[in-house]
Amino acid sequence: MTPAESRERFAAARVATLATVGSSGAAHLVPVTFAVEGDTVWSAVDGKPKRATWLVRHENIRARPAVSLLVQHWDEDWSRLWWVRADGLARVTADPSIVEHVVSLLRRRYDQYATVGVGGPVIEVAVHTWRGWSA
Amino acid sequence: MTPAESRERFAAARVATLATVGSSGAAHLVPVTFAVEGDTVWSAVDGKPKRATWLVRHENIRARPAVSLLVQHWDEDWSRLWWVRADGLARVTADPSIVEHVVSLLRRRYDQYATVGVGGPVIEVAVHTWRGWSA
Repeated sequence: MTPAESRERFAAARVATLATVGSSGAAHLVPVTFAVEGDTVWSAVDGKPKRATWLVRHENIRARPAVSLLVQHWDEDWSRLWWVRADGLARVTADPSIVEHVVSLLRRRYDQYATVGVGGPVIEVAVHTWRGWSA
Repeated sequence: MTPAESRERFAAARVATLATVGSSGAAHLVPVTFAVEGDTVWSAVDGKPKRATWLVRHENIRARPAVSLLVQHWDEDWSRLWWVRADGLARVTADPSIVEHVVSLLRRRYDQYATVGVGGPVIEVAVHTWRGWSA
């Protein structure tokens, strides 16, 4: 799968797994909704943030900006399996104009945000490598 | 969700995301099939291993045994979302009796291994924390 195809499949997916790395050196995983613009992956904070979890993620990124995102398609027919991994550098921002932009992108992608709250701070991942595999 | 419920949901899932950490300090993500026995999560190498990928994973574990596994359930109805994270210490082994045991567990869980090859080395994750969330 080419990087362009990988990005396209990633961008069309509904959920990704975000991996950050903590100060202990261990990976921290969490599912995220997201929006892709070019080589940027955006995510935000859902309505009822489980504060501890989100802080871990944000704190990890502030200390170690290298992150990885995975989108995967599971199917009992293994000839239909695929996944795309996006590796990049992340930053956390609460800049109101950026948060507003990202919330608008997310509301366009997810009807659920009509009733579920969404806000900042947001995570911006500048992806340097799109890598995909399909069976 | 209690740790016991978390483990039960994890054990019943079909695919997990495994995160290891590389020497650069960045997380490396890959989907894996698996089997759970008590607080151990086993995974192996599928028939046509993409050698580079598998070596990265194995090399990462040998250098940094702390890993994280995530199982997640996506649903457009967000009242049905859940995920379980298993954090633990991993080791890689090619011990024939262990590999045989793990392959047998995996063949019992996945009918697909009747036609898809599966073998060692295997990854053993000794889970110290089962953490689950449901909407």
